[in-house]
Amino acid sequence: MRNLNQDNITQAVIARLAQTPDPRLKQVLTSLVQHLHAFAREVKLTEAEWAYGIDFLTRVGHTCDEQRQEFILLSDTLGLSMLTVALNNHKPPGCTEATVFGPFHVEGAPEVPHGADVANGAPGRPCEVSGRVRGLGGEPVAGAVIDVWQADADGLYDVQREGLAEPQGRAVLRSDAEGRFHFRSVVAEPYPIPNDGPVGEMLTATKRHPWRPAHLHFRLQAPGYETLVTHVFRDGDPYLDSDAVFGVRSSLVADWVEQPDGRVTLDFDFVLNPSR
Amino acid sequence: MRNLNQDNITQAVIARLAQTPDPRLKQVLTSLVQHLHAFAREVKLTEAEWAYGIDFLTRVGHTCDEQRQEFILLSDTLGLSMLTVALNNHKPPGCTEATVFGPFHVEGAPEVPHGADVANGAPGRPCEVSGRVRGLGGEPVAGAVIDVWQADADGLYDVQREGLAEPQGRAVLRSDAEGRFHFRSVVAEPYPIPNDGPVGEMLTATKRHPWRPAHLHFRLQAPGYETLVTHVFRDGDPYLDSDAVFGVRSSLVADWVEQPDGRVTLDFDFVLNPSR
Ligand SMILES: [Cu+2]
Ligand SMILES: [Fe+3]
Ligand SMILES: [Fe+3]
Repeated sequence: MRNLNQDNITQAVIARLAQTPDPRLKQVLTSLVQHLHAFAREVKLTEAEWAYGIDFLTRVGHTCDEQRQEFILLSDTLGLSMLTVALNNHKPPGCTEATVFGPFHVEGAPEVPHGADVANGAPGRPCEVSGRVRGLGGEPVAGAVIDVWQADADGLYDVQREGLAEPQGRAVLRSDAEGRFHFRSVVAEPYPIPNDGPVGEMLTATKRHPWRPAHLHFRLQAPGYETLVTHVFRDGDPYLDSDAVFGVRSSLVADWVEQPDGRVTLDFDFVLNPSR
Repeated sequence: MRNLNQDNITQAVIARLAQTPDPRLKQVLTSLVQHLHAFAREVKLTEAEWAYGIDFLTRVGHTCDEQRQEFILLSDTLGLSMLTVALNNHKPPGCTEATVFGPFHVEGAPEVPHGADVANGAPGRPCEVSGRVRGLGGEPVAGAVIDVWQADADGLYDVQREGLAEPQGRAVLRSDAEGRFHFRSVVAEPYPIPNDGPVGEMLTATKRHPWRPAHLHFRLQAPGYETLVTHVFRDGDPYLDSDAVFGVRSSLVADWVEQPDGRVTLDFDFVLNPSR
């Protein structure tokens, strides 16, 4: 296997994967090599561009730490995250749609009782959130583990702030016997994704804005149902049609309602798909 | 732009690149998004596989530092580096062929006089290397800047050893008025690419060996000529037909000759392509 050229190197690399014991890994790597090489051939990638790419990816990696996941941001802004969600969430009509996970989830957030203030000191306009978790047949889902996380009025998640003693805008609740939950928090506002790193460099170079429409993140887990990772978007947001990460679904847009007594409330029901 | 699905998200992402001022950047990113999405669609990438990929790339980034370039290793082992070399080095017959740059070059190595011992203490069997730099028309190329770098008998480059006070197996020379150069060093030996990181994980999972056939690295730069990045491989090496990074070219394989007086010598001439 010497003297490989642009026409036969792809087959040579694929042949080198022939002994891969895991058939799925072999399939994924084979396809990856084919598309990666097809990209390089199609654009006739120059050596300077290759070097820029190596440096860019290295900087993306160096921007990742416990608090920041720049590779998820890159995947989100290239539409790969939403494509992966679309490929894996063919739920029947009537189920709540899924959207991107995003880079700001934290495992092991504190479980709080119904009615708790999830904002926990994060700045913003107070609001009350309630809803029900149901299965596709309309049955209430009791004991669903509900992760909720959100940015505050400054557009920041708690993990983007230095030196917080406790989580803010982030908690876990459990649905009650009727599938209900409710908590207090602050109204979600639009925010720019972190754009002081390599992904921001890409957005600037392509004249793309970094904004996401206001949303709450939810992850719902319950035995017998598919896990649902989704958002509730805020109606009227100016970025609903140009989300930097391509995640908006009309069925997930809801109203934070101004009540006559001055309170702001959001009511949103989730419908889970039974697992197969 | 809401409710994107697996069939229309690629066009939506490409549309978001429409305002990119640099036409080449727009072309490269558009092609990248198309092939990246085509890959995900073709294999029906699962959310768990996506998460593994994010974590893998993050670990590749975290493995990179001043001494180590894991993204170049990844590019090398996926054949992307050699493909890029092939796409950009259509030299006329008679020119010395190019091959991969590799992750171990260091800019600013010390310039040494002809006859110097480039090994500078690195372990290995002593040898003498000489040659001439010519242009395609046969003319000597004087004053060519010749970077040479190599692994030692332990299979290590100096940057892989801790606490060295000076470079070892790495130097810069200049060709003389007749295009000649000569230096002393140690005989190149085969070595495994660093395989204690994520790239090693990939090699293990695909049952690929990490070995490269013994070689010297050269970069030749001279005004009026295309820069040449290449290797000289050692004839008889057991890995010439299974180089972990797909870089071997028959025209670059040469003999380290045992002389009757016990010396080991390598003589290799380089032919540079005039720049257009
Ligand atoms: Cu492709
Ligand atoms: Fe978010
Ligand atoms: Fe090498």
